[in-house]
Amino acid sequence: MPKKLRLGILGGGGDSLIGVLHRVASQINDNYEIVGAVFNPDYKANKAFAREIDVPLNRIYEDFDTFIKEEMKLPENERIQVCSVLTPNFLHYPMALKLLENGFHVICEKPMTTTLDEAKKLQKAHKKAGTVFALTHTYTGYPMVRQMREMIKAGVLGKIHKVDAVYYQGWINTIIHDKKKRASVWRLDPKKAGISSCIGDIGVHAFNMVEYTTGLKVKSILSDFNYLYKDNAMDVDGTVLIRMAEHVKGVIRSSQVATGEENGLAIAIYGEKAAFRWEQENPNFLYVLSDTKPTQVYKPGHAYNSKLSLEGTKLPPGHPEGIFDSMANIYKGAAKAIRGRKFNDGEFPTMLDGVRGMNFIEATVASHKGGNVWVQLE
Amino acid sequence: MPKKLRLGILGGGGDSLIGVLHRVASQINDNYEIVGAVFNPDYKANKAFAREIDVPLNRIYEDFDTFIKEEMKLPENERIQVCSVLTPNFLHYPMALKLLENGFHVICEKPMTTTLDEAKKLQKAHKKAGTVFALTHTYTGYPMVRQMREMIKAGVLGKIHKVDAVYYQGWINTIIHDKKKRASVWRLDPKKAGISSCIGDIGVHAFNMVEYTTGLKVKSILSDFNYLYKDNAMDVDGTVLIRMAEHVKGVIRSSQVATGEENGLAIAIYGEKAAFRWEQENPNFLYVLSDTKPTQVYKPGHAYNSKLSLEGTKLPPGHPEGIFDSMANIYKGAAKAIRGRKFNDGEFPTMLDGVRGMNFIEATVASHKGGNVWVQLE
Amino acid sequence: MPKKLRLGILGGGGDSLIGVLHRVASQINDNYEIVGAVFNPDYKANKAFAREIDVPLNRIYEDFDTFIKEEMKLPENERIQVCSVLTPNFLHYPMALKLLENGFHVICEKPMTTTLDEAKKLQKAHKKAGTVFALTHTYTGYPMVRQMREMIKAGVLGKIHKVDAVYYQGWINTIIHDKKKRASVWRLDPKKAGISSCIGDIGVHAFNMVEYTTGLKVKSILSDFNYLYKDNAMDVDGTVLIRMAEHVKGVIRSSQVATGEENGLAIAIYGEKAAFRWEQENPNFLYVLSDTKPTQVYKPGHAYNSKLSLEGTKLPPGHPEGIFDSMANIYKGAAKAIRGRKFNDGEFPTMLDGVRGMNFIEATVASHKGGNVWVQLE
Amino acid sequence: MPKKLRLGILGGGGDSLIGVLHRVASQINDNYEIVGAVFNPDYKANKAFAREIDVPLNRIYEDFDTFIKEEMKLPENERIQVCSVLTPNFLHYPMALKLLENGFHVICEKPMTTTLDEAKKLQKAHKKAGTVFALTHTYTGYPMVRQMREMIKAGVLGKIHKVDAVYYQGWINTIIHDKKKRASVWRLDPKKAGISSCIGDIGVHAFNMVEYTTGLKVKSILSDFNYLYKDNAMDVDGTVLIRMAEHVKGVIRSSQVATGEENGLAIAIYGEKAAFRWEQENPNFLYVLSDTKPTQVYKPGHAYNSKLSLEGTKLPPGHPEGIFDSMANIYKGAAKAIRGRKFNDGEFPTMLDGVRGMNFIEATVASHKGGNVWVQLE
Repeated sequence: MPKKLRLGILGGGGDSLIGVLHRVASQINDNYEIVGAVFNPDYKANKAFAREIDVPLNRIYEDFDTFIKEEMKLPENERIQVCSVLTPNFLHYPMALKLLENGFHVICEKPMTTTLDEAKKLQKAHKKAGTVFALTHTYTGYPMVRQMREMIKAGVLGKIHKVDAVYYQGWINTIIHDKKKRASVWRLDPKKAGISSCIGDIGVHAFNMVEYTTGLKVKSILSDFNYLYKDNAMDVDGTVLIRMAEHVKGVIRSSQVATGEENGLAIAIYGEKAAFRWEQENPNFLYVLSDTKPTQVYKPGHAYNSKLSLEGTKLPPGHPEGIFDSMANIYKGAAKAIRGRKFNDGEFPTMLDGVRGMNFIEATVASHKGGNVWVQLE
Repeated sequence: MPKKLRLGILGGGGDSLIGVLHRVASQINDNYEIVGAVFNPDYKANKAFAREIDVPLNRIYEDFDTFIKEEMKLPENERIQVCSVLTPNFLHYPMALKLLENGFHVICEKPMTTTLDEAKKLQKAHKKAGTVFALTHTYTGYPMVRQMREMIKAGVLGKIHKVDAVYYQGWINTIIHDKKKRASVWRLDPKKAGISSCIGDIGVHAFNMVEYTTGLKVKSILSDFNYLYKDNAMDVDGTVLIRMAEHVKGVIRSSQVATGEENGLAIAIYGEKAAFRWEQENPNFLYVLSDTKPTQVYKPGHAYNSKLSLEGTKLPPGHPEGIFDSMANIYKGAAKAIRGRKFNDGEFPTMLDGVRGMNFIEATVASHKGGNVWVQLE
Repeated sequence: MPKKLRLGILGGGGDSLIGVLHRVASQINDNYEIVGAVFNPDYKANKAFAREIDVPLNRIYEDFDTFIKEEMKLPENERIQVCSVLTPNFLHYPMALKLLENGFHVICEKPMTTTLDEAKKLQKAHKKAGTVFALTHTYTGYPMVRQMREMIKAGVLGKIHKVDAVYYQGWINTIIHDKKKRASVWRLDPKKAGISSCIGDIGVHAFNMVEYTTGLKVKSILSDFNYLYKDNAMDVDGTVLIRMAEHVKGVIRSSQVATGEENGLAIAIYGEKAAFRWEQENPNFLYVLSDTKPTQVYKPGHAYNSKLSLEGTKLPPGHPEGIFDSMANIYKGAAKAIRGRKFNDGEFPTMLDGVRGMNFIEATVASHKGGNVWVQLE
Repeated sequence: MPKKLRLGILGGGGDSLIGVLHRVASQINDNYEIVGAVFNPDYKANKAFAREIDVPLNRIYEDFDTFIKEEMKLPENERIQVCSVLTPNFLHYPMALKLLENGFHVICEKPMTTTLDEAKKLQKAHKKAGTVFALTHTYTGYPMVRQMREMIKAGVLGKIHKVDAVYYQGWINTIIHDKKKRASVWRLDPKKAGISSCIGDIGVHAFNMVEYTTGLKVKSILSDFNYLYKDNAMDVDGTVLIRMAEHVKGVIRSSQVATGEENGLAIAIYGEKAAFRWEQENPNFLYVLSDTKPTQVYKPGHAYNSKLSLEGTKLPPGHPEGIFDSMANIYKGAAKAIRGRKFNDGEFPTMLDGVRGMNFIEATVASHKGGNVWVQLE
């Protein structure tokens, strides 16, 4: 019987944008009911927010420890089954770890942890727990991203020889050029935000997109960061040369000072037989290029799309679905896994994506600090 | 206290696409809880579907009459407050009428009724009831459509002199060119589908878009339909010349045989000072044209957007929102109205839009049948 | 031996834009040498301009009559072979007529004449002369326009059921809204500019594009013009319903008050199997739509293009060619014909296009003045 | 008196595409007359081609030495004034050198020479000669490229912090994946084609575009090439990290195996106040981005454009001009210089661009071969 999964939420209260994204996504396919939460570290704000969005107050907990303690007291058929971790980055690891150790399924925001070491520890805990762990690299939920993955798997591109991914934003311009602002914002404080700003926050999405779509692993990287100002300790721009399987090379570009860019995530993949071009801000258009035939524009919801792609489309062609629908597709895949149903490889990013991402972030920092040298990924 | 509104749903069960659209939209902004329904005329299927999407079975009714009877027995603070009418077109009128007569708020799919006469009767009933009636011309919920309306109101375009709206689709090609198919499909049977196929289903969206954005009323029209085959009784293509206020002219084009078009709704509005171009399949890009300055591309979520537009955006610029979010904005506006809160003019289409739409549909049919003559709208 | 053709030019001196367009176009494919001209009615200006562009002065004539007289004195192997008529519209007819009567080949700007009656007389003279007459509907020279024509001929679209063409501009906004300006400009004076402004100047291009690409003839039309102001005697906007072969309907839209539009000529053609969309301002991209397959983007210079299209491309794919190249293709086709070489149907618009165009213009005026009634084309 | 300049042409005969491009470009603005040439090393083919394009045979020379010798015998007022060098790359240097030494003006295809050393020697010869030397980096002639340069100069972007240029093509796929073909084609033979294929042929265009538009010099580079196959000696893909003035970083990407790409030259420049995005295949659209205002789309021919941009537009807005017009603008600028008239900085690329380009090419090869290390440009 398809009773909705009992979902708990950690973080994402108030005006949190990531909170809206996950909450809406969880409701889109009739799979989840939010039954408990710690939306906010402040208990009062936490409860006020629960009231605002009409979540029953009885399982709105004072803090994460209470959440775990109280939920574990409940009988299994009442207990929260899956918990979304939407807290600031440095809390992902301890929370996800404890959740896994207590047998919960976990849906976790990226970056999964703040270090590769944490990521590996979490991976171990996950193996032991045997529950479902989904990492919300949101963009992988877009039907046309899934379409790329499936077409590459099916050999439509032939051998790949070049990959070019980018994630450009401009928003940090409002901070970085003001000496006071850049000194005071937590985003540019390594103690609070981790070892990387640009790569850690967005470059890693481009990296994940490369591995998700091609099915190939990045083997080594060479990066050059830009901090723009000497008194700024965090990268706000970074270009990363990548090497994948033999003779496959590419580049990952990311920037937070790309003036006027919003969420400029895009990928181009060039293969022996054909190529792809896709942009996040026009997510429903996938360009399939050829040296000899007219470019083809794939759109979602068509009979010509792959099963995995169609699984992520709710309406017929011509009805634009967006980022909420993309995230909802990840939640949908996770729900299948949690319910022990059959799901397709690629329906949601996993623990492995999280480990790979942390590996990438640390490698790019090491490469830049080492003088722009090649660094192997594990 | 912002307790969720108790929502009932009529129709939209099983694979119904309109069902998914409304259900998802109702959940997006934490405003509604589905508590009762007649998803399907078949009671068994009705309950099975409720189970599938995890709606409690106790208020899943056998039919619409039972729905009304049983809900009216409930105390007001338990009773369904608002009901979405998603049934086939000919049922919109009797259901909406009875709902209004019994004091329910109504969210109704378009076309509101099957005749202008019904529309006017419903309008009377609505006046008497004093409850909220929202008509789901979905596309008006897009932030950039709202932006056009507000900018025109603010005088950015100056006096308007030309309007050009279009809604092109190609899907009926799979039916219309086969003699047997076109004879047997209910869509092309006037007894079942009403007096117009193309104008009634999609042309009316373009018409609504014209009046919604410009704030002007269409005064008279001249239409030419195409049935393509002599044995086909329903329009599958229609071009409509329109005249609005003095010297404002325009055209509304619609087609269901525009091969390869999906949901090709678009509008161009030309004014003395500037112009707009917008397309439904790229809903997050609004082009503002000028004779002397560079074209400007407006996108949602920016500080430069109007309040009404921003009210319909959940995430910062660069996160594409789509048709579900657009419909959700209409539900959000309706919720404000139902709760007696302040809302902006334009947050949801109303009874008036429904009456205007039926007036337009009947006028275009009369014009075509009368030999492509000018017909006044009321 | 491929000696360059001896070209004469009438009109197009000074800052004339049409002059630049033709002069450049004539030079692009090594086919023509400008040897004589009356660039300007003022003899002094005429000679000054010839000097400026370095055309020998000995055959710069005082006026058109002298041009004819003196050229006819020359031995045939020195005499101008082909003459481009770029003068104001009302001079096209008398000049082209006399040129044909004296055995010259003619390349003529559109509109070919100012009335259908003149057009028919010119047609007769042309039949008698037996020389080449090319009408410069410039846009037909674009490779992707030619590609449409050839693909339709080859049956790629199957039976056509709908045609939609548009030519929107905004430039007359600078004139029309000022009472004095609109009263004084020759463009809006029927005595000087002919019976139609908008249809005569640009609507006729859209009409020509429809017939050129589809190979079908428009049979009847119903038009609605807009003059915007009561004291303005010339159409500045017009929408035209068209009927072609049985069950093929369509619309031609044109406007000179479409604020911010530049040369917004575009066409969409919908057939049983596929459809086209093309826009003049992105002339190197042809979209081929299908109900079941991904949209294809055709570009010039590829092996998959038709012979006629490739004949109009000088460089490999990816090198944008523009309006000068398009006009040059028409000159190239005319040169083949003048030299008696084999050329393809469609390499340049002909006398027939000119007659059809005048027929269309007069019919739209008649329809509008008759109260928006259907008017047959001959 | 504006007598046309006497132009000589070396190379570019037969089907040569570069020949068509230069010949057409030279004719577009009434500035040049082709009076002499060595189109082809084969004297017979040379003369046949001259006949075909109707250039008088008396100054069609047997070879380059004869060309020089015979022309020098002519009185100065008959002698060729300027000579276009369109021969294979390795001949650019000796021919340009001798032309300069004999007092000719030179218009030279890129790459200017095959080594930086040659480039410097040519630079010295040029200084001594004092004639005009124009290097045909064709893309700098586009009005919107000029517009970028002028707007940057005027401070519209403020301080630049990031530059991203790309030139992707796919054509070498037809050669590179076949062992025999890649072994036999001259393009991949370093003895014939120079030290670099991808950077030398197209990457250098992207480099030139960066310096042309920003007015900044690239100071150091780090490159990674891809040869795809071990038996292939020439780069067919290369990504180059660049560092410009302090804290300005960027990337230049180029590829000849970017399947389906045609002439994918594009540039993005991000500054403190605004940013640019421009693509060669849609050359008439320049996107001006801002973090706070709507994106603006600049098009050519408007009053809002810079003088240098308008200098390169022949028709009003909306008439697409293309690559021939772009090259023609360079010829136009060179003509002004040759005639000793005033011209704007930026009207044609110069000797300095040639030296910079060779410096860049050699540096990227050195960087890659040195293990992807930083290499300073001079």
